[in-house]
Amino acid sequence: MMNEDALKELVAAVGPENVMNDQASKYLFGRGAVDSFSGTPDVVVHVTDREQVSKVVKVAYKYGIPVVTRGSGSSVTGAVAPSRGGIVLDLKALDKIKVDVENGIVEAEVGASVLDVDRECNKYGFFFPPDPASARIASIGGALAENSGGMRGARYGVMRDWVLKIEVVLSDGTVTYFGESTYKNRAGYDLLGLMVGSEGTLGIITKAWLKIMPLPEKIIRIAGFFNTLNDAADAIYRIRVRDRINPLILEYTDMEGIKAANAVKGLHYPELPGGMVLVDVDGHAGGVEKAAEKVVNVMKETHAAEIIVPDTKEKFDEIAEVRRVAFTAPGHLYPGFIDGDIAVPLSRVKDALLRIAEIRKKYNVFITTVGHAGDGNLHPNIGADPKNADEWERAKKAAYEINIMAIELGGTVSAEHGIGKLKEDVLLKQFEVRQQMPVYKLMKEIKRVFDPKGILNPDKYALSDQA
Amino acid sequence: MMNEDALKELVAAVGPENVMNDQASKYLFGRGAVDSFSGTPDVVVHVTDREQVSKVVKVAYKYGIPVVTRGSGSSVTGAVAPSRGGIVLDLKALDKIKVDVENGIVEAEVGASVLDVDRECNKYGFFFPPDPASARIASIGGALAENSGGMRGARYGVMRDWVLKIEVVLSDGTVTYFGESTYKNRAGYDLLGLMVGSEGTLGIITKAWLKIMPLPEKIIRIAGFFNTLNDAADAIYRIRVRDRINPLILEYTDMEGIKAANAVKGLHYPELPGGMVLVDVDGHAGGVEKAAEKVVNVMKETHAAEIIVPDTKEKFDEIAEVRRVAFTAPGHLYPGFIDGDIAVPLSRVKDALLRIAEIRKKYNVFITTVGHAGDGNLHPNIGADPKNADEWERAKKAAYEINIMAIELGGTVSAEHGIGKLKEDVLLKQFEVRQQMPVYKLMKEIKRVFDPKGILNPDKYALSDQA
Repeated sequence: MMNEDALKELVAAVGPENVMNDQASKYLFGRGAVDSFSGTPDVVVHVTDREQVSKVVKVAYKYGIPVVTRGSGSSVTGAVAPSRGGIVLDLKALDKIKVDVENGIVEAEVGASVLDVDRECNKYGFFFPPDPASARIASIGGALAENSGGMRGARYGVMRDWVLKIEVVLSDGTVTYFGESTYKNRAGYDLLGLMVGSEGTLGIITKAWLKIMPLPEKIIRIAGFFNTLNDAADAIYRIRVRDRINPLILEYTDMEGIKAANAVKGLHYPELPGGMVLVDVDGHAGGVEKAAEKVVNVMKETHAAEIIVPDTKEKFDEIAEVRRVAFTAPGHLYPGFIDGDIAVPLSRVKDALLRIAEIRKKYNVFITTVGHAGDGNLHPNIGADPKNADEWERAKKAAYEINIMAIELGGTVSAEHGIGKLKEDVLLKQFEVRQQMPVYKLMKEIKRVFDPKGILNPDKYALSDQA
Repeated sequence: MMNEDALKELVAAVGPENVMNDQASKYLFGRGAVDSFSGTPDVVVHVTDREQVSKVVKVAYKYGIPVVTRGSGSSVTGAVAPSRGGIVLDLKALDKIKVDVENGIVEAEVGASVLDVDRECNKYGFFFPPDPASARIASIGGALAENSGGMRGARYGVMRDWVLKIEVVLSDGTVTYFGESTYKNRAGYDLLGLMVGSEGTLGIITKAWLKIMPLPEKIIRIAGFFNTLNDAADAIYRIRVRDRINPLILEYTDMEGIKAANAVKGLHYPELPGGMVLVDVDGHAGGVEKAAEKVVNVMKETHAAEIIVPDTKEKFDEIAEVRRVAFTAPGHLYPGFIDGDIAVPLSRVKDALLRIAEIRKKYNVFITTVGHAGDGNLHPNIGADPKNADEWERAKKAAYEINIMAIELGGTVSAEHGIGKLKEDVLLKQFEVRQQMPVYKLMKEIKRVFDPKGILNPDKYALSDQA
């Protein structure tokens, strides 16, 4: 239980109406998007500006109270689950967005959703490239904390590539800034990059200055449906590597994913064993048609059974929705969800898809595999019932084996969703296999430098011996 | 002088022929590309592989000997000048390059030049986007240590955006790896990013796994020459921001730079007070012509006095050479050179150009200003004679005032060339103005974590109180 004095100081800092310790608040704010990781905070503190964040963190620092920072709570790795009571700090109300067209920048407070930031940019003829599937709900702060990517990652990378500067509240409540709001900056070590992907363990980001891009003149979307995984993987490989087409997006959805999306959304896309390869090409009008033609030709040559080029805005959106829904389908169809987020070298995407199919069979579990195939990033997500001990055990074993497979193929256990609680064991495994234990040691020392009292999101990211 | 035992161990590690302490070696390896910063090492150690690097660093760690790591020595900030004797570690012989087309990666040892890496990729229809003006000589290791950019930065950013994984020798000689050779990776804190731009103060990079890109189908180059800085700046602003053209390169060269390049190379490009705006548009054939038309129209509307669209490979290369030569011109024309490397928010490029013109007048010094205008990154480089005390003093004052001006405009004192010795004072000034002194404190603590004995490139980067 929280110290009485600390509680009084929190109430003084943000007002009694913003310090909640009712059961509903503690339940709701005790978990992210998956139920398997949860905890119970002592209090949920709602803040509306940076000053309040600083005040709250000062109290936490003074009394050594754990602080779990939360945006929209869409984490699938347990990163937002409080492990030791303490404070869940809700930043969702910090949601101001200001597009600075003159400087090609958008200033966004961290509670704003990624999609709202993108839409605000659209009004000015610009867009914000990172587009995690969860963009509608995912907050900018969460996306930065996890270094999220998205479909446009094939061309535009991840959050790290688009953030120029952040406002940060350090573990003692000090406010400072990492980076500069210029397109290039070499003033000091890259602590900005260090903060991105640190999952709330090093400091609390309250605002970000992000680069934006002019909207492309034209986008053409092409979906190919394949009879075999081999053919689909060949198409991916040729588009991304051999034929050097440089698409805007290059996405994969397997048959199970398509089936699930069709079922959930009442759609009728082809349910073929090779799944769907979804490609956007973009650019200046005149050139983009030629690129689309190339993609169609590659798909024909790799034996696509059906090729769809949506000719209305509705169909254009709908087919991407299949890919999005396929990701969350295991969570719609089963009470329990285990996130998959591996990346492998581009040439191993085929092997990864085939191995996932084997693992699905071996453990007899429900897996949909979707992914940013153009980046070698696959999401083999598992649905199972945690109350069915046998099924849940098989699901966990399958997830573990998929991660080990990623390491064996020269890949990584986390591409864009982070570590949280979910992947602590396989992260350490990967460090070990790759001769990176010295890196892990440095990580722990850096954690100590930023958070000497160990109050920031403790027990996550394999750093729990920090406390 | 170096301890006798240490010397013996170095000789045992790499062979007597690779431990040089003759005067010529000590002179040559005691400086980078500018003479104003130099030192005298006790020995220059030439190594040919990672194992030798590790052995040498182990000796240095054991005896507390400073190690200045050196690629091609093209640094303009004093980053490679030894300040306390010790070892200059020459990595130029680590120059293997292996293009891995299958995975869209090039593996390069750090002594390879950036241009050689690019050329090797070209053989396979790919290219390596970062292209610092010094690419012909600059090593991959130096470019990583400085987080270099280049002309294609308008589209493709800096080294940080293209490096996936590095092999690193830590300060105690341990070999490890930061990052993974996948296009995405979230395993652990971003220590890879921390190493990039750390100027040899945190560890020694021996090899890098870099992303590569398919060569664009077609590039059209357009050069506009302007009567006033105002018009040139308007053209830059419209191309980059207002008209949302998204060029591959967007470069600026001022009149003094063009004059100098014409003189040095015997060329005859227009020497107008507004200088030259150089633009490449690229993409799929068919679309790129339309983009070029847009650029030409913008230049006409912003009153370009002359527009050149090179129609031969020779002219295409020559006009970019004007931009490149203009950068180094002050060094050709004067015995002393002071590097300028500011970045300002995009909307302030015009103000920066006008202020530089004022500063030139005020101090009556020779400045050429070129730059990656599309990134807000300008290089106002100064030529002067260090033996002429008055002239050199004026040059240094002008350089200082330009840096302060950058800070005032919301910019940064270093965009892509780093801090070294040259910008320590203005780096601290910037940290102070931007409420970033807590960041500086964290930097120093991180330096201590990585290099507890303070042997890696000491006295640089405003970290000299580390020793």
